[in-house]
Order: sequence, then C-alpha cells, then structure tokens
Amino acid sequence: MDKRLGERTVRFKNGVYIKGCASIVEKTEEKGPFGEYFDVVMSDDLWEEESWEKTERKMFRTAVDIASAKAGVELKDIRYLLGGDLLNQIISASFSARDLSLPFIGLYGACSTMSESLMIGGMLIDGGFADWVACATSSHFATAERQYRFPLELGTPKTPTSQRTVTGAGACILAESGERNDPKVTMCTAGKVIDFGVKDANNMGAAMAPAAAETLITHFEETDRKPEDYDMIITGDLGTFGSEVLKDLMKDRNIRIDDNYRDCGADIYRGLKDIKCGGSGCGCGAVMLSAYYIRKMMEGEISRILFTATGALLSPTSSQQGESIPSIAHAVAIEREGE
Amino acid sequence: MDKRLGERTVRFKNGVYIKGCASIVEKTEEKGPFGEYFDVVMSDDLWEEESWEKTERKMFRTAVDIASAKAGVELKDIRYLLGGDLLNQIISASFSARDLSLPFIGLYGACSTMSESLMIGGMLIDGGFADWVACATSSHFATAERQYRFPLELGTPKTPTSQRTVTGAGACILAESGERNDPKVTMCTAGKVIDFGVKDANNMGAAMAPAAAETLITHFEETDRKPEDYDMIITGDLGTFGSEVLKDLMKDRNIRIDDNYRDCGADIYRGLKDIKCGGSGCGCGAVMLSAYYIRKMMEGEISRILFTATGALLSPTSSQQGESIPSIAHAVAIEREGE
Repeated sequence: MDKRLGERTVRFKNGVYIKGCASIVEKTEEKGPFGEYFDVVMSDDLWEEESWEKTERKMFRTAVDIASAKAGVELKDIRYLLGGDLLNQIISASFSARDLSLPFIGLYGACSTMSESLMIGGMLIDGGFADWVACATSSHFATAERQYRFPLELGTPKTPTSQRTVTGAGACILAESGERNDPKVTMCTAGKVIDFGVKDANNMGAAMAPAAAETLITHFEETDRKPEDYDMIITGDLGTFGSEVLKDLMKDRNIRIDDNYRDCGADIYRGLKDIKCGGSGCGCGAVMLSAYYIRKMMEGEISRILFTATGALLSPTSSQQGESIPSIAHAVAIEREGE
Repeated sequence: MDKRLGERTVRFKNGVYIKGCASIVEKTEEKGPFGEYFDVVMSDDLWEEESWEKTERKMFRTAVDIASAKAGVELKDIRYLLGGDLLNQIISASFSARDLSLPFIGLYGACSTMSESLMIGGMLIDGGFADWVACATSSHFATAERQYRFPLELGTPKTPTSQRTVTGAGACILAESGERNDPKVTMCTAGKVIDFGVKDANNMGAAMAPAAAETLITHFEETDRKPEDYDMIITGDLGTFGSEVLKDLMKDRNIRIDDNYRDCGADIYRGLKDIKCGGSGCGCGAVMLSAYYIRKMMEGEISRILFTATGALLSPTSSQQGESIPSIAHAVAIEREGE
C-alpha cells in the first residue's frame, strides 16, 4: 500500500508509458473541428458489415490493431486487453477480445470506461503484472440509439439537452518501459458513485457533472495540485450543458477550472447543425484522447493533462422503475517530461 | 513485470489475504445440499423490495456489508469495490456501490465475474495500491429470466440442458495483511475468449467448457502444477452437462481432473426435482466459494483450491444475430498454510 496519496488516489512509481493510440470514427465526427486527427474515418456507419453491432466490433478490433502497430508491439505480446462498451453484456469488447486472441478483462463504467481502463491498466503495469496492456472502448450511434432509446427508423425527435452518441473506437497501448518524452500515466483518482437525484435520461450531462466535480475536488485535495498545474482538464462527455454545470459546481467550492477546461463531448461536434448538446458515449472521450490530446502531448505541445471520463450508470430498466441516475468519474493524470 | 509465471499467469509476492466472505441466497438454494452454509436465506424472492431488481441490489449490498463485518473492516476503509452482475449496465453492482459509498471498479465477465474480481482485486493489493478491497457479484433467477429469456409469468418450459440462475450474492474481502492461516490468493491465470461455435443459448455449459479447459491447461503448464496439487479444482457454473464436457476435454489432453473436480452449478441444487442441469449465474460460484469452500479452508479442512469461474459472453442481441457464444474463464489459486 505504498503507492497511495490519500484515500482515493494512487501514484505510479515505475512509470506507465503510453506508446501508441488509435481512433476510428465515422463521417459525422470527421465533420467536426477535430476531423483531421482521427486515424480512420469509416466510409459509412456499416463499414461493410451486415449489422451496426458487427461494425462496432470491427471498429474496436481495428483500433487495438492500429494502436499496437503504432506502439511497435505485436498482439501476442500484449498481456491484457482491458475495455468495454455501452452494449448489453459489452459484446463489442468481448467479441473483439475473441478475434484478437488476447487475455481479456471486461470492464463496465458506461462512458467512464476509458479512464477506468487506463487506471486499472496502469495498476497492472506499475504493479509488476504486465509489460504491455491495451485499453480500449467503443460506441456507435446506431447501436446505442436502438438499445437505449428508439430505433433510428422511427425518426424520434431529440430533446434540447440530448447528446449524440459518438460513433468511435479508441485504444491506447500502455507499456512498462518507454522513452523519456513519452506521455506517462502518473496518478489516478478512483470515482465513487454519486447521485444527485437527476432522473431525466435525456440530460445525462447534468447527472454526471456532480460525479466529475467530486472526483476532481478529491484529486486536487489528495495530490495537493491545483487546476492550473494542468495544461488541460478534460472530461469525457458532459456535453455543452453538463460542462457548464461542472464549472458552476467547482466554482461553488472556490475552484476555478474555466481557463483550461475542455469537455470532449462539447467539443467533438462543435459548430455542426442539428446536434443539440454535443457528443456522448464511451467512444467520445476515447477518440478525443487518442486522436488529439495524446498526439499533442507526443508532439510536445502540451505536457500535463487530467483526463476524467464520466459515466452514467443507469439502465433502461432502472429508468423505467423510476430510479435516478447514479454516475461515476475516474481521473487519470497523464504527463510528459520536457525536452 | 517481475510477478509473471508465463504468458497468462501471475504469482503474488506479498500475499493477498481473504479476511471475510458472505453469501445470501433464497429458499431454493437453501433446499440444496449446501443450505446450511449460507449466511442469509431470504424469506422470499422479493425480500421486502418492490421489484426483483431492487432485491438483487439489496442482496449485493448486504453481502458486502456482512463480509466486511466478518473481516473486521469498516466500509470506509475499503479502497475499491470490484464487481458486477448479469443485468444490463450492471445496475446491481453500480447502485450498490452508490449506497455503500465505495470507490467502484465495474467489471463484466458474465458468470466469470467472481474470479475476474478476485484476480484484479488481488493485483491491486499485491501491486501496492490498496490495503482492503471488496469483490462481489450477484444474480437473481427472476431478473435474469426476464432479461435473458422470458418473463416468468409466461411459464415457458425449460430445455433439457438449461440451468437455473442462482438467486445469490457473494462477497469476499481481500487484505494486504493477515494471519498465517488465512486463505490467500496466490496465483491467477487470466482467460482468453474461446469460441467453439456453440450457438444454443440454452446450453451454455457446453459453450463455456472449452474456455475452462483452455485456462486450466494453461494454468497447469505455466505453474508446473498438476491437478493433484490442488485439493479441489472448482468451476463456477458449467452445470451437470458442461462439467462432463470439461472432463472429456481435459482427458483428451491427458489431464485427469475427475478425482478432485467440482462444479458449483452442478452441486448447488443437487438432488432437487425439476432443476435440469443445475445452477448458473454470477451468484452461483460466488455463493459456493464464499459460503462453503472458503469456510472449509478457514476451518482447515482443505488447503489448496483452484477457483475457475466461467462466463458466457453472449447477449440476446448477439444470439438473435446468429452469433456463437464466446466464453472466458479466469483461474484463481487460493491456498492456506498448514497448522
């Protein structure tokens, strides 16, 4: 228990290097302001598969494949694949693990899964249990809509606070050794499940913002860091409305994050018409982290980020039974030494 | 990476102690041959809640509460709750984590979740990231039937190879320190996702047996142990049919496990009328391990077991789309020193 910095935060001793990342999206994501950064833009939402669920698997698998190639590691040398997705029984991740023939640790943290997998993957490496791990998540607009809301064929109108599930898969390869300038996962603050009683499943940003706030506050307290110690504080998919709620909640605690705070959900579709409160889904934070933020760290433009993906832990059944939306956020500090 | 014994197996260096376990079941499980060992037998399948889903949460939460009390640790001192269940978006585990106010790592490995959580929980302790963790899973006959098969109200007949989802929640508390005679998690072999092409969702034992065989064979190879080095080799819920398939698959590789092999699913309802191929579900292996096997280790009757819970990683959607059933098994060695 020598790696703890408080009740919820751990600090890695040996270094957990991010050696390669990959991102796969569809045309809608390409149209947004980050379009140029994604590794693969699919020709359409089926990508030559016969169902959207199969497409999502192909995206997941391909993201791991490309990230491994970039990291210079063969699949057979990866000790664990950690990941999950939004589909029931996380079939995108499980079927991908089968096809990739990798030892598999299935995770479910809804849209927080990318930071959950980086946190656990980091612990497996820093703890001496693995030299290489792959962390990956995915989501797909069409599979999520028909599972969580309505089949697309119905043309159901959107509420003003709704977010569009990102069609995207992101993967990061972590390694126990690397170069001095590689981005490294250095600290992680685990989330508790927070529930402010929000029941509107079309306003998940508001439900998740308190979880993000609680984790961020805990992180700053336990690490003795301030928001300005990070170049960027990044949440996964609070959306335009939820990210305003987060800023307000932080302000209430006298912590000002406005200057260096970004939300992947609010940013990914910025400027596109007909998209209400931005993007959401496991894939949202995963592709933005993999495509943009890690790349900018590798290029030396930014050197310290706090990636805090948030998840709404509801199910259609729990909503139908009148339950509120419990949420969680895990914070992962990623840092790079200077030149 | 100093804790590996081969490609898939890790050995803990510092000792991961099992300090307390708890199990909660319903009357059907009490009628089986292990009825006397469970901590709580619910009065009925609702246990004063208004829906079976809420009952399952109460079971999950109560199992963690009782296990913590037995371990002599306060909830606030538990660093992580690791676990999951069979319900979509693992709501039993997530809502329980909210009510228990514990940092939460959501896992999904279908019925393999108990060994997945012991494996990851063990790594978090042995890696120096936690002094106490809670590992828990649950399943409930009524919630699983209506989600995966048919609402109970329909009275749908069972196929000959079907298994009954165990109504049960099991929890184990792991700690970084303990007494010399406490059971300890010593080694873990992670599963790959194995798929022999079985498509019959009413015959999951047959689908999962190859995954159990592959993990067991890997474990014996990498640890240089033989089946007879264990007092018991225990699978989670292959059922009476699936466990025969496993013995045959092992025999094909010249490994004989018949003498000390038990399957929790085949055993839990043994002798009960109208239960076809035994029990299944996350809760099955969890309650048998927590109630019986760990207790027998604590009492000194057995001293070395290999707990290998298996999971069928299908979803109703993947089955409807004609997919086969990918499966996984993680093996966890639990040992106790002699008097």
